[in-house]
Amino acid sequence: MLAPKPSSKAFVPFVSVGNMMRLVHRIGIETMLVELTDSIEADFRRWELFDKTARVASHSTDGVIELMPTSDGQTYGFKYVNGHPKNMGQGLQTVTAFGLLADVATGYPILLTEMTMLTALRTAATSAMAARYLAPAGATTMAMIGNGAQAEFQALAMKAVVGITTVRLYDIDPVATEKTRVNLADTDLNVIVCSTAQSAIEGADIITTCTADKQYATILTDNMIGAGVHINAIGGDCPGKTELHPDILLRSDTFVEYPPQTWIEGEIQQMPKDYPVTELWTVITGQAEGRRSQDQITLFDSVGFAVEDFSALRYVHEKLAGTGLYEDLDIIADPDEPRDLFGMLQRAK
Amino acid sequence: MLAPKPSSKAFVPFVSVGNMMRLVHRIGIETMLVELTDSIEADFRRWELFDKTARVASHSTDGVIELMPTSDGQTYGFKYVNGHPKNMGQGLQTVTAFGLLADVATGYPILLTEMTMLTALRTAATSAMAARYLAPAGATTMAMIGNGAQAEFQALAMKAVVGITTVRLYDIDPVATEKTRVNLADTDLNVIVCSTAQSAIEGADIITTCTADKQYATILTDNMIGAGVHINAIGGDCPGKTELHPDILLRSDTFVEYPPQTWIEGEIQQMPKDYPVTELWTVITGQAEGRRSQDQITLFDSVGFAVEDFSALRYVHEKLAGTGLYEDLDIIADPDEPRDLFGMLQRAK
Repeated sequence: MLAPKPSSKAFVPFVSVGNMMRLVHRIGIETMLVELTDSIEADFRRWELFDKTARVASHSTDGVIELMPTSDGQTYGFKYVNGHPKNMGQGLQTVTAFGLLADVATGYPILLTEMTMLTALRTAATSAMAARYLAPAGATTMAMIGNGAQAEFQALAMKAVVGITTVRLYDIDPVATEKTRVNLADTDLNVIVCSTAQSAIEGADIITTCTADKQYATILTDNMIGAGVHINAIGGDCPGKTELHPDILLRSDTFVEYPPQTWIEGEIQQMPKDYPVTELWTVITGQAEGRRSQDQITLFDSVGFAVEDFSALRYVHEKLAGTGLYEDLDIIADPDEPRDLFGMLQRAK
Repeated sequence: MLAPKPSSKAFVPFVSVGNMMRLVHRIGIETMLVELTDSIEADFRRWELFDKTARVASHSTDGVIELMPTSDGQTYGFKYVNGHPKNMGQGLQTVTAFGLLADVATGYPILLTEMTMLTALRTAATSAMAARYLAPAGATTMAMIGNGAQAEFQALAMKAVVGITTVRLYDIDPVATEKTRVNLADTDLNVIVCSTAQSAIEGADIITTCTADKQYATILTDNMIGAGVHINAIGGDCPGKTELHPDILLRSDTFVEYPPQTWIEGEIQQMPKDYPVTELWTVITGQAEGRRSQDQITLFDSVGFAVEDFSALRYVHEKLAGTGLYEDLDIIADPDEPRDLFGMLQRAK
């Protein structure tokens, strides 16, 4: 049986995991983290243009599967992402993802890509973007509580974008910390392994929490947090999953991505509904203040938002040109005469 | 640069348009339409199990892009689908689609497939399923108003599932009608070309409307509709897009898929909110009556629902085994040690 030859419109460029890794190395990981940070920041500046919706989540006993769509009117993007904390015990990723860009005018997809790797990069870039506006001036040291799949990406983004020179690692599992230490050994970062969360945050200007339990967990308590730090809380990102004691939030100025989603998924789900939050995009556009003083505790209550994925997808789409780092996927049925779908099927017989 | 070898868990079977067409011919199109009808009916019987949500639509001037997720607790599925009536003028499909199945327990995708072809098949199968319960006994003749990409699929499904022997074609564009006539010439169907909608519905037991304008259009008026017919209205499927004069609905018993979605997208968007509708699944389970008499006018106000795509995706997933009609897609980053995503990236250098 001869394969029918699909039309060129039938093809969608697909970036596999292998090709995404090649793209990262071709660009250079730190360069890519800086460029992704700039891309996300540019989209946060035009935040009001985006068609925004809280992600569509399908919760189950063991985890969640989410679809995160958005559009700027020209381009539409969405990400499929799961979060299954128990996966790790079976040798699987807690978070896997893929994403798609489409042309709003025709609805035709223009890019399909792995996003497990890309989500790790965009999450770190988003944290770095927030820290640009919220971390204390001259921050040099980050505590990294939770040394899972995000840890190295966070450390490198804070190095490349904010200029930190030291990262202090802690995880309840020393194996995770050792993995992170080894992976960061080739970088210029000064890496310090700590045996408690308390010791990890000593002298830290930025405290990043990224743990994965789907339950209310208190990774940081109020007495641990000194004046002037910036807390980058990225592990609490679904209903019932938080990392900070509510007393910390009472002392902090809290910044969020998209309030309707953060109230459901973020640290602020523990707080009364009149707890004040500032939308990060308003800080970036200058409509709201970010850090006001060296004593202020700032908290970025990050849950991840569709606009960040959109920025990352568009960045990859732009960078792909001329690299050959994609395959053409025959995913769109495109008969010569659009109404003749059946004829196309019959001719393939 | 050597390609890093992805783990077997990284692979997701992908069914291209070419392979979907091969699968259809291997099974036989009429057999597949009957089997799809049975699969959808089996899922409508367990309707209450499904996690249901109105689709997430992103509307623009020229069309809509939608995500349609659902889950039965074991398996999760979603479809990406666009609807762009103006595409045809550019030689593009009005509707293109792809879909995905995932394992709820791990969140890992288990199937990615084209769904432009599959949506045409499942839409026809859903119409045939409704007609099983709503068309007059011994129906032999269907009028097909709108001879676009759906037309032949509708005709063959009504033949294979309901037993019609004659199809009467009408479209405002005679080229579309001629295309449909030629495509159906090899089947056992008696195909009659009509020059008006009025003449097409003469003697018809089933009237199927499937036109694509994104505007309120009146394809059928009240005086055209005689007692006892079953109307299968599938073209009115988004806000502002309807095909029937509201007076027809006043004389009909109307059956719908998922009321919260149909009130937004279906023919009933023209009606007051107390207009009675019956959920099709309750007819299939015997909780509600379908057709009660030979004089009754029944209307299936179909907009397409995620459960139908779920059934179609599961059907394809089952039928794929042993066929080789798929490619393995390296779309899931799956490091040996799940927390070592960064190490996987570094080793690919």
